[in-house]
Amino acid sequence: MYREQIKVLDCTIRDGGLMNNHDFDDRFVRAIFKAVSEAGIDYMEIGYKNSKKLFPGDKYGAWKFCSDDDIRKVTEGIPSKTKISVMVDVDRVDLDDIKPKKESPVTMIRTACYVKDVDKAIFLANHFADKGYETAVNLMAISKVLEVELTECLTQLEKECKCNVVYLVDSNGALYQETVEYLIKKAKSIIKTKEIGIHAHNNQQLAFGNTIEAIIHQANYLDSTIFGMGRAAGNCPTELLLGFLKNPKFDIRPILDVISKEMIPLSRQVEWGYVIPYAITGILDEHPKSALELREGDKKENYREFYDSFAGSSEVE
Amino acid sequence: MYREQIKVLDCTIRDGGLMNNHDFDDRFVRAIFKAVSEAGIDYMEIGYKNSKKLFPGDKYGAWKFCSDDDIRKVTEGIPSKTKISVMVDVDRVDLDDIKPKKESPVTMIRTACYVKDVDKAIFLANHFADKGYETAVNLMAISKVLEVELTECLTQLEKECKCNVVYLVDSNGALYQETVEYLIKKAKSIIKTKEIGIHAHNNQQLAFGNTIEAIIHQANYLDSTIFGMGRAAGNCPTELLLGFLKNPKFDIRPILDVISKEMIPLSRQVEWGYVIPYAITGILDEHPKSALELREGDKKENYREFYDSFAGSSEVE
Repeated sequence: MYREQIKVLDCTIRDGGLMNNHDFDDRFVRAIFKAVSEAGIDYMEIGYKNSKKLFPGDKYGAWKFCSDDDIRKVTEGIPSKTKISVMVDVDRVDLDDIKPKKESPVTMIRTACYVKDVDKAIFLANHFADKGYETAVNLMAISKVLEVELTECLTQLEKECKCNVVYLVDSNGALYQETVEYLIKKAKSIIKTKEIGIHAHNNQQLAFGNTIEAIIHQANYLDSTIFGMGRAAGNCPTELLLGFLKNPKFDIRPILDVISKEMIPLSRQVEWGYVIPYAITGILDEHPKSALELREGDKKENYREFYDSFAGSSEVE
Repeated sequence: MYREQIKVLDCTIRDGGLMNNHDFDDRFVRAIFKAVSEAGIDYMEIGYKNSKKLFPGDKYGAWKFCSDDDIRKVTEGIPSKTKISVMVDVDRVDLDDIKPKKESPVTMIRTACYVKDVDKAIFLANHFADKGYETAVNLMAISKVLEVELTECLTQLEKECKCNVVYLVDSNGALYQETVEYLIKKAKSIIKTKEIGIHAHNNQQLAFGNTIEAIIHQANYLDSTIFGMGRAAGNCPTELLLGFLKNPKFDIRPILDVISKEMIPLSRQVEWGYVIPYAITGILDEHPKSALELREGDKKENYREFYDSFAGSSEVE
């Protein structure tokens, strides 16, 4: 599938960091940035731009906060055309932390929100746009949104928001490709002046397939992570996406290399990817939180009991 | 997706056995048969019906040969509506081993062949049909078949073969869903008197997505394996397929249980599933043989070198 407008955004550090409190050392992040740059990937999302006031202490690594200095430290000296992206959550960002674009190594700021919070996201995205950044709004948990509310949200984004991209985020890893087709077509029917993006989770091993489905229906901004590293079951693997896209600007080899050298050792210390509890929350369209908790405890392989725990709760009318 | 005609065939022992020389002990096979039966799965393929003359010695377990007595030993006493299937390869079966259906615990015999060998497969399938079995022909390596040859093969199967089902087999795990759609529609356009089946491999994490795609386009026979166990990257996971299918006859819980109790321990001894060398052969539409060999050696994580080894060989015109 070759389409010039397609942009790949690798968010290994940002989404993968949800599995290790963003505690990657600088050497590791440099290696990822170098690989992503050599692979010709358009954007690298290097972390969250959270306010340090809200996440105090030393529980989190630098990539929870992404100071401009930290970003410079891991990118300087590496030849790159890859643009740096950071993510903010509504209510977790200190706007005073965001310098004007021309003073920052960051090119894009993406605001993640639930559909109910879209007003806050529009305010933030417009603020970042006014400071000179490329901007995106990432609509989370899209599998749980009532159609009437999605329609209103998309209409509002189209009319009121200066963002360049609106992403649909399958936070629960619950979507099948027919619904992806439906949602992307719906978004395209309302959003005329911005690009549509897809961010898929791999609970049901459908992150790559759903990303292809979104591409077929004209989504042009594609999130992926190296070796699929991301929250719980992880994301669409960057290596598979590059293998599929036919744009000659991409080179899969640096990604293969960095998987050998960095991701395989890391995968022995940090768990992500397909395991049954994440599959269960995906099948049931539930947030993976309960499955993440299960994997921390001594009942981590008690799948049937975990599955039945949802059946019980759904009896409450 | 509810469609009464859909039949699920679990081939954990048959395809998974390619990773351990079919050396499953009886207790394990009984546990799988019990789970598959309790889950309401239509068929269980319990192994290959190879000739013992061709695979002598003690390198292989019983499920490479599937004697009727071995099958009875692991199924007797377990309440079940699941039909037993065995697979034969052309040129590897001794027809004298195949008793009439009424004397055998086997219901279905599937003949696997490359498109070039379809004449042999038709001969075998007709022979088995004449002995009273349900029969299928599984067309392997479908991603490598020239369209003109596929057309001829399908036309021949429709006209000359008594089989009930024609399966398209993505042996290389190379297909994307657009090609699955194309091939299933093509098969449906030629095969009018038999069902179409899909057998997908998971090299690119697309086995489940491609199976859904085949369902959408009216394939009714679906292969899957528990926890995806199968050759190399494995297959469409049974647990995900049952989670997707809405037919109330299926129950996912016995499958979840047997994964906890049997597949997780086994997965610590036998490797299958998504690893980068299998992804590479999938992306390049190559047989996984070279990747399987790589995983046996001390260069198992040298992905870039492995990838480049194909680039070299493709320079030979």
